[in-house]
Amino acid sequence: MIAQHYVDMLGGKSVIRELAEWSAARGAEIGYENVFDYSLGNPSVPCPPQFTVAMLRLLQTQEPVALHGYSPTLTIPSVRAAVAENLNARFGMDYTAGHIFMTAGAAGAIAHALRCVAVPGQEVLTFAPYFPEYKPYAEGAGLALRVVPPCVQDFQIDFDAFEAMLSPNTAAVLINTPNNPSGIAYSPETLRRLADALRAASARFGHHIFLISDEPYREIVFGGACQQHPAAYYDDTLTCYSFSKSLSLPGERIGYVAANPRCEQAGLIVPMCGQISRGTGHNCPASIIQLAVAECLDTTSDLGVYERNMELLYAELVRLGFTVVKPGGTFYIFPKALEDDAVAFCRKAQAYDLALVPGDTFGCPGYFRMAYCIDTEKVRRSFAALERFVREEYGAR
Amino acid sequence: MIAQHYVDMLGGKSVIRELAEWSAARGAEIGYENVFDYSLGNPSVPCPPQFTVAMLRLLQTQEPVALHGYSPTLTIPSVRAAVAENLNARFGMDYTAGHIFMTAGAAGAIAHALRCVAVPGQEVLTFAPYFPEYKPYAEGAGLALRVVPPCVQDFQIDFDAFEAMLSPNTAAVLINTPNNPSGIAYSPETLRRLADALRAASARFGHHIFLISDEPYREIVFGGACQQHPAAYYDDTLTCYSFSKSLSLPGERIGYVAANPRCEQAGLIVPMCGQISRGTGHNCPASIIQLAVAECLDTTSDLGVYERNMELLYAELVRLGFTVVKPGGTFYIFPKALEDDAVAFCRKAQAYDLALVPGDTFGCPGYFRMAYCIDTEKVRRSFAALERFVREEYGAR
Repeated sequence: MIAQHYVDMLGGKSVIRELAEWSAARGAEIGYENVFDYSLGNPSVPCPPQFTVAMLRLLQTQEPVALHGYSPTLTIPSVRAAVAENLNARFGMDYTAGHIFMTAGAAGAIAHALRCVAVPGQEVLTFAPYFPEYKPYAEGAGLALRVVPPCVQDFQIDFDAFEAMLSPNTAAVLINTPNNPSGIAYSPETLRRLADALRAASARFGHHIFLISDEPYREIVFGGACQQHPAAYYDDTLTCYSFSKSLSLPGERIGYVAANPRCEQAGLIVPMCGQISRGTGHNCPASIIQLAVAECLDTTSDLGVYERNMELLYAELVRLGFTVVKPGGTFYIFPKALEDDAVAFCRKAQAYDLALVPGDTFGCPGYFRMAYCIDTEKVRRSFAALERFVREEYGAR
Repeated sequence: MIAQHYVDMLGGKSVIRELAEWSAARGAEIGYENVFDYSLGNPSVPCPPQFTVAMLRLLQTQEPVALHGYSPTLTIPSVRAAVAENLNARFGMDYTAGHIFMTAGAAGAIAHALRCVAVPGQEVLTFAPYFPEYKPYAEGAGLALRVVPPCVQDFQIDFDAFEAMLSPNTAAVLINTPNNPSGIAYSPETLRRLADALRAASARFGHHIFLISDEPYREIVFGGACQQHPAAYYDDTLTCYSFSKSLSLPGERIGYVAANPRCEQAGLIVPMCGQISRGTGHNCPASIIQLAVAECLDTTSDLGVYERNMELLYAELVRLGFTVVKPGGTFYIFPKALEDDAVAFCRKAQAYDLALVPGDTFGCPGYFRMAYCIDTEKVRRSFAALERFVREEYGAR
């Protein structure tokens, strides 16, 4: 008998996906180049040539039985060692292969990390605005996701609200920096205060509260800012990474969990991930993809377009009178809508062929997300539509 | 705080993996060519050239942003359509793309199938001898796996034992034909009786009992026998397939769930799989692997070696006095051990550099598995060791 629980989930359609579908349908009518589709966070630049070269070389030179053979349960040792070395060189850490577990993107990484450090019935805290898939990730592991209200002046952390929500039932705190949808990177000061608060709460409640740090946008930071590694601030951290954005490989499903070598039972985390995989049916990412990304750890796609788009869009939004915090990274910007109801605001924008995602989707009503992983030329062309939308619907500002 | 449940699982080491590790260590001492390693079910023949050609062509001709872009949630439509057409042509079915969901191998397929048709607390029945990972697969979905005792004379189904174990709490029955470890394919008669029993039990208990048919060895059948498709016998069937064996791609993690178009709520199964994926962190197999296997549906690796090895091994085992049912497919054979304690039998075999897996691992004590996915020349060379083992440990027979 089919499981009603999953049937019921079918009702809750993704607002982002619906907007993307609307954009595609509208594009079929008026030409997709005329739809200003800011809905989807899908990389717009190709993978670096090194990835393609690595794939071709593996296919042309490696013995197929070995190349396409089973990964070891804990994923490919040479790949894990390469990831560890890369993180150590960049962030002054001391990972070994034993702390790295390759996963199917950040989704796979978070699925493993949550099951490693929380048991069904416990709570995971995250901060609004937050990536909406966190909810099914948590619920799929039998956990309740509780959302700390946003700190809208700068999208850092409202520590009073956060500390009030920590409880003996808090197993983990899930952060995403730089953040989808706000584009904001946590400051070193925020990461220090967060670590202090977690250490104090762990001591108070008598168990290690883990930090799960979701970092798919780590490589996309603006203004020459340093890339952050939250694990460097707090020992009980599991870092969840994806190469989807940095190497423009979202379909190849490749990322990792890195267990801080100083976390509770650091040596057990990766073997536990191997056990978790058995129950979820997610036994290692594709071998050839593991091997190819291991050769691309020092490179990225040409990510400069995202910063150029952000600067243009930020200036235009400010010019049009929007309240907006300037992104420190990612390919998202999260302005305040021009009316309290961001859903209505975004619906009106569709009449101007603008696909904007209401902040309600991210636990932050009254704001909206624009994913500017699109051609810069299209960003520029969207300004006339944006201006018309603002003037006609909301008057001179 | 780390989840003790998964830590506890670390104690239960896989007997198969331990034997494979022993073989590798012994190989380091005496040369791996001198270890008769029948432990692991890892394909020994390369993928067909068509797969490599398809991968190279995709990398050399497709635009990287599209090639490596996100799969749709329900996996790539053209790939699903190609799988459906292939199954229809071969088995007279009427699948459409809407009934196919691409997964990370059979493990991913079974993880999805179980969650589609059973809810935590329910039972799944399977038949000894069975693939030991079925236990973590079932438990990972919150289900109890109950094992029907083996029918050792032919490794078909003991229907009296099976019918006695069906209960109102039975959600699904999980079969594997051709079978790992017995090598036996269910006969049409067995499949017909199984379908009848399931229809009767579904009527009796007032809910659809699903058949989950795990078929990674479907393409490896011997003696010119027909490949079977159990879904053709029973409407409420979810077929779980893997290309790991037929295309020798176990590391690339690619397979599918196919929902019989006449099963309960057939149109909902694939959308449910999309929802299930969100909670398990297993969001689609790698895009390029999906696209490449879609071009190889009419081909396989050169699988003839497995039948040649089986014929040699079967004749030798019979000559040495073993009781053994002749395999109808796979690359496994499952003889009766020469003493009641198959664990002791297999331990003694190690002194002769033979790696044999005790049947206890597969819920069938007193038997042992040989995985003959190795070079034919090595199979031949193993006979002297096998004969010495039998004569010296068990006397003239």
